[in-house]
Amino acid sequence: MALIVQKYGGTSVGSVERIKNVARRVIKWADAGHQVVVVVSAMSGETNRLIGLAKEIQPDPDPRELDVVASTGEQVTIGLLSMAIKSLGREARSYTGFQVGVHTNSAFTKARIESIDQERMRADLERGMIVVVAGFQGIDPDGNITTLGRGGSDTSGVALAAALGADECQIYTDVDGVYTTDPRVVPEASKMATITFEEMLEMASLGSKVLQIRSVEFAGKYRVRLRVLSSLTPWDIPLEQEMHSGTLITFEEDQTMERAVVSGIAFARDEAKITVVGVPDRPGIAYQILSAVGGANIDVDMIVQNQSVDGFTDFSFTVGRNDYARTLDILKTSIQAHIGAKDIIGDPKACKVSVVGVGMRSHAGVASKMFRTLAEEGINIQMISTSEIKVSVLIEEKYLELAVRALHKAFDLDAQAT
Amino acid sequence: MALIVQKYGGTSVGSVERIKNVARRVIKWADAGHQVVVVVSAMSGETNRLIGLAKEIQPDPDPRELDVVASTGEQVTIGLLSMAIKSLGREARSYTGFQVGVHTNSAFTKARIESIDQERMRADLERGMIVVVAGFQGIDPDGNITTLGRGGSDTSGVALAAALGADECQIYTDVDGVYTTDPRVVPEASKMATITFEEMLEMASLGSKVLQIRSVEFAGKYRVRLRVLSSLTPWDIPLEQEMHSGTLITFEEDQTMERAVVSGIAFARDEAKITVVGVPDRPGIAYQILSAVGGANIDVDMIVQNQSVDGFTDFSFTVGRNDYARTLDILKTSIQAHIGAKDIIGDPKACKVSVVGVGMRSHAGVASKMFRTLAEEGINIQMISTSEIKVSVLIEEKYLELAVRALHKAFDLDAQAT
Repeated sequence: MALIVQKYGGTSVGSVERIKNVARRVIKWADAGHQVVVVVSAMSGETNRLIGLAKEIQPDPDPRELDVVASTGEQVTIGLLSMAIKSLGREARSYTGFQVGVHTNSAFTKARIESIDQERMRADLERGMIVVVAGFQGIDPDGNITTLGRGGSDTSGVALAAALGADECQIYTDVDGVYTTDPRVVPEASKMATITFEEMLEMASLGSKVLQIRSVEFAGKYRVRLRVLSSLTPWDIPLEQEMHSGTLITFEEDQTMERAVVSGIAFARDEAKITVVGVPDRPGIAYQILSAVGGANIDVDMIVQNQSVDGFTDFSFTVGRNDYARTLDILKTSIQAHIGAKDIIGDPKACKVSVVGVGMRSHAGVASKMFRTLAEEGINIQMISTSEIKVSVLIEEKYLELAVRALHKAFDLDAQAT
Repeated sequence: MALIVQKYGGTSVGSVERIKNVARRVIKWADAGHQVVVVVSAMSGETNRLIGLAKEIQPDPDPRELDVVASTGEQVTIGLLSMAIKSLGREARSYTGFQVGVHTNSAFTKARIESIDQERMRADLERGMIVVVAGFQGIDPDGNITTLGRGGSDTSGVALAAALGADECQIYTDVDGVYTTDPRVVPEASKMATITFEEMLEMASLGSKVLQIRSVEFAGKYRVRLRVLSSLTPWDIPLEQEMHSGTLITFEEDQTMERAVVSGIAFARDEAKITVVGVPDRPGIAYQILSAVGGANIDVDMIVQNQSVDGFTDFSFTVGRNDYARTLDILKTSIQAHIGAKDIIGDPKACKVSVVGVGMRSHAGVASKMFRTLAEEGINIQMISTSEIKVSVLIEEKYLELAVRALHKAFDLDAQAT
């Protein structure tokens, strides 16, 4: 008997019929003797509907009140799923974030989980009940409702698994695992049976949408065994088969098989590049620029500063495309004159492509092979950033698909078995 | 400066534009120096949508989980209204039932309020904030979400007013007060400037939909000054005018003016009559019949037992039309043979018409005038019940409008000034 936390996303609970199928799947696990805690998202489209309503009232909605509104989506799902489970003859009980005791800080719309009470869940599980918990939400020290931000239900699932010491956290989604790259771009992309935690972290942070990055970080910190699998398979596939399906995120590099040097190609559309031109090259300039941007809650991703020429340098960085206009505006109005920059320029149509793999540690030449591949396709590289297990480049958006296909082939991923 | 509790129903917050108008109206009161607590319902249609979803999952939804789902409607409204108030420059803060501390018993879907914490609301009001509270919902001693049943937001409003010792509880609705009868049936019906608490209680229990009866009972118990007024007037009508608009429910009979003997005509459609025919006339029979019906959570309204003939009698009572089939079934399967009744018959198409007025206490002849009026119109009376300030009759449904119009005229209500 194992203690399993299963998380179902918005698509998986997107209709009454799908909720019933989730109930049947959950019961299959419970009937096999496992203790099951289910974490659910809002029905697909519901969170957007609620945020849309809020924006009609207040274009930039008050964060505390936005969380009050947005958190109702998950609350509806937990009630409906509990009913569905009960109507099939198993006991279930729903919990909102405040009821189960998901304690967060007070950063509305992007709160962080600080602790989770487990008494009520344990008591229910001991009595054979299926516990159904609202993802995405928590409660702050003052009793205010908080949400964890987009994709936060993944984090809720992992955090619950960590708090309960669950044997596995299963993230059910509308894809059947983690692929070497997005199959919509490269049809030859193949599903990985396992991926290391570090690789998954890079894949998630580099734009692979399968798992929300904070959930991966959380899993790493608390060493939660995490599996991504499909909720679109028939609910009654044999448990033994489902148990080994999808992609398992492992903490040890798999020694038993020859790993490819590069595990996958990640990419992120919707990047934008900003360059502060002709900045006096003196200490504190980068800090001034980035703190102005960060102070407006804009996330900066890649950062490059060129070699100084005659005491002046160019400073470039990327932001999400939605933040492009606002970033330009902030820099032009409050920074440019202040630091004596010659100009602020940018490109709102960039994208980032990355090759990821723990194998890079022991294999030189990944970066040069990447650059050569792109050069052969005539793709200009605008920015480069690297870490121990990935190389990322910023390129023009129109080359995205071409770059991903070429790299997938160049690193022999087209042929990789699952 | 007064402390005012305002309650807005589903129609009053039925769209983004209407929520903004509620915000403007609330701010008008706050700007005049009053402390304002606002209680809101779900946007119109939303509770039905949520209950519909639940019934798609489980035709007879689990009550605990139904409350989890249904209570989200009000939660959305409090967030949106607080945003709207803030966007207009006043501070506001929303509270769900659990956040403000609306403590109820555990009777899911029809919980009763036991106590309300006031610390948070008081602290916010002292700081000049407008407090926005979700109606209809509370929390039971185990931390489960409860709802108060249909119309429960009225009760929430009155209960909050009682807890805070508010100077007035204002129920904003889509009519502009309490009428002598339903203006859709009698165009000559007129709005009453005041109505006594007892009359209001009878009007509410007899089918007048303006106020939920439990809210009136609550107001009576805690002597809350209660006013029904319209949310459809322009939000910027002068405060002085709005303050005296609608209908005030008073605790003392108004001595300064000549009251009509009868204040209003109430009616309830959707009644059904059941008759247990040929019951042996011995002690305990009525109890056996009614406990079987009450045990199935079916409310019985009028009850009549005929004179016994040869040791046998007929026992009749009314139930809501929705409960008609179920009541017949219960009696036929588990009661008829047991008590030796000859037959169980019924009429699912009855309705109840009542004349109400505290003036009846000092004026004889109201009942006879009522019966004569109905006889003149050729309307047969099926059952009669009376109290100190009302006379109710059950009649065939097809005569409803005719009866109400005739009685409204006979008791000189057509001419009554507001």
